Amino acid sequence: MVVAILGGGQLARMLALAGLPLGLRFRCLDPAADAVAGHVAELVIGAYDDPAALARLADGARLVTFEFENVPIAATDWLGDHIAVAPTPRALAIGQDRLLEKQLFGTLGIGVPDYRTADSCAELHAAVVAVGLPCVVKTRRLGYDGRGQVRLAAGADAAAIDAAWAELDHPQHGGLIIEQFVAFDREVSVIAARGRNGEVAVYPLAENEHAGGILRRSRAPAPALPDAVERAAHELVRAALAHLDYVGVLTIELFVRGETLLANELAPRVHNSGHWTIEGSVCSQFENHLRAVLGFPLGSTAMAGGGVATMINLIGELPARGTLLGVPELHVHAYGKAPRPGRKLGHATAVGSDRAAVDAIAARIAGMPAAAPTDWGFAG
Amino acid sequence: MVVAILGGGQLARMLALAGLPLGLRFRCLDPAADAVAGHVAELVIGAYDDPAALARLADGARLVTFEFENVPIAATDWLGDHIAVAPTPRALAIGQDRLLEKQLFGTLGIGVPDYRTADSCAELHAAVVAVGLPCVVKTRRLGYDGRGQVRLAAGADAAAIDAAWAELDHPQHGGLIIEQFVAFDREVSVIAARGRNGEVAVYPLAENEHAGGILRRSRAPAPALPDAVERAAHELVRAALAHLDYVGVLTIELFVRGETLLANELAPRVHNSGHWTIEGSVCSQFENHLRAVLGFPLGSTAMAGGGVATMINLIGELPARGTLLGVPELHVHAYGKAPRPGRKLGHATAVGSDRAAVDAIAARIAGMPAAAPTDWGFAG
Repeated sequence: MVVAILGGGQLARMLALAGLPLGLRFRCLDPAADAVAGHVAELVIGAYDDPAALARLADGARLVTFEFENVPIAATDWLGDHIAVAPTPRALAIGQDRLLEKQLFGTLGIGVPDYRTADSCAELHAAVVAVGLPCVVKTRRLGYDGRGQVRLAAGADAAAIDAAWAELDHPQHGGLIIEQFVAFDREVSVIAARGRNGEVAVYPLAENEHAGGILRRSRAPAPALPDAVERAAHELVRAALAHLDYVGVLTIELFVRGETLLANELAPRVHNSGHWTIEGSVCSQFENHLRAVLGFPLGSTAMAGGGVATMINLIGELPARGTLLGVPELHVHAYGKAPRPGRKLGHATAVGSDRAAVDAIAARIAGMPAAAPTDWGFAG
Repeated sequence: MVVAILGGGQLARMLALAGLPLGLRFRCLDPAADAVAGHVAELVIGAYDDPAALARLADGARLVTFEFENVPIAATDWLGDHIAVAPTPRALAIGQDRLLEKQLFGTLGIGVPDYRTADSCAELHAAVVAVGLPCVVKTRRLGYDGRGQVRLAAGADAAAIDAAWAELDHPQHGGLIIEQFVAFDREVSVIAARGRNGEVAVYPLAENEHAGGILRRSRAPAPALPDAVERAAHELVRAALAHLDYVGVLTIELFVRGETLLANELAPRVHNSGHWTIEGSVCSQFENHLRAVLGFPLGSTAMAGGGVATMINLIGELPARGTLLGVPELHVHAYGKAPRPGRKLGHATAVGSDRAAVDAIAARIAGMPAAAPTDWGFAG
């Protein structure tokens, strides 16, 4: 049974690595000939909106799923006419647009930071006045890993607002959204899977730390999180899954302030903040996404490996291979990608029963020397 | 970095699945076009002793390793002249021949069941008299999963001995070996990895149960095993690794009677009785084999997943997919092989902290209905 995936990056690769032991096979579509899912799946090289490439992707496959949400509408339209698609294009459409996300969160009764939209520089100025400084100006569409956003500090002047407009204005961005800056205590994410029969399984929340807009560390379960916050997040993701009649894995990123939750954004897919589930859960987010979209029973989202997990992203360059592999408790995932500043090249996860001990193992990565160019053997 | 593997069955497949997250890639040689490692590795289809096929296998690879020990001497000779090989052909030669195995065990000071060799029917008769009935007649070479052996019961007569000779005599079998039947309490195996620098990591012993000569269930750590037995097995495998200057994973199967160990056989490779290490150990036998042969530091052989693991082989036919995947605590490994009586099609592992609970989860497999022919989608 072949599962087709739009996108051939590390998320597609980890979906395939999770599904191969279930006897599944994979085919991915990606414009890049060196897309790393090609190491474990048949790779169709082509544009996402090329009907011929989409036809090759879909040929004989059981269904098509996605490793990212910014799928061209032409692709989902074509696929919807030819093959089963999961999750639904409606969820993808919401995940592509920060305004639709916020409207969904409003429907579900979860708070979001105060926000306004702007389709012109004048509207941007008005929106900044309305939400107040400091604030964050984001493109409605195509933002990720800190790209497509500008922070306006407390003392930002009119020139700074003009500069933000100049930087972010682009026809593909669908206009801007201006969010009040929230002085949150912590960021968390909740990941859940919903099967074709409506069965839902929710993972314990992870606490996420970013730098430069890119996730650096996720810890699960989120340390010392009030039970009420954990419960509220589970209720929220269950409500979102039901509202969307969703099938597959859905991720919601949240801000926590005291015992209050504010919704940040939604990803209709497996998520970097859930990579710890490979070793930290009985059944990983990747396997559960496949189980969900294929109509199989869901696996257990209970913690495994001792009950505590910490994941560290390996960004821009990998640590020296011998040093990284020399920590026997670390689970290393190198994606086979060539190094490039800001690029997610891999991750490593420590699991155990003691939060401080697990964090200490994971923290060793920060002190490791960088790999020499030929160390891991991935083309530069 | 490409690792080449002679053989493209489930062991090669699981080696590749373990090595891909380290950024490794794989190429396998197998005569069968549908060899299941081909789902995760480049597959060279050809005979093991075909120099052209071996050259394609080795081209640009870092080294060649093996998923089975019955490698034609022509293959190891060719490979030895062209590429690094691990483990050493000497260990393969011992693993191919039950007499050399027993001689090695003698050198290492570990007991074996009383035995004789026979190269003619007359010698077989004499050997049976010498070791006594009941006994087991085995081919020196090419036996596996209960093939290549005949049991002679307590009352076996001359005709039964003649029949055993007729069944087992074959030029490729290298003669016969006749072993006293040992009324052992249990069978266990010890699996260990040795790195290029001599570093050794030993897994806790597993207890193995066979039926019809095929492994059915492995449980680790072996329940209620005397510490002295565990220690003696660790010392034995360490001695064997050092004696052979071995690099890679080595498995030794043992009989236990009270606190006495008798060596049964040796496999110079990852082993079915170590499949539980995928979820039950911090670092699996597959990843540790790759770490060892590539000169990387070894991973931890400590128990993970709660401390207790039970693996069930799925033989001849798979259980109905929905039923098997409907046990959320089971880790399912389907190899993608077409069903055939006696064929190893997959395995499933339960891990946890309570021996009885884990065994109970694993035991549910025995009561499951068989899959319909199209259920798993593997060609029949």
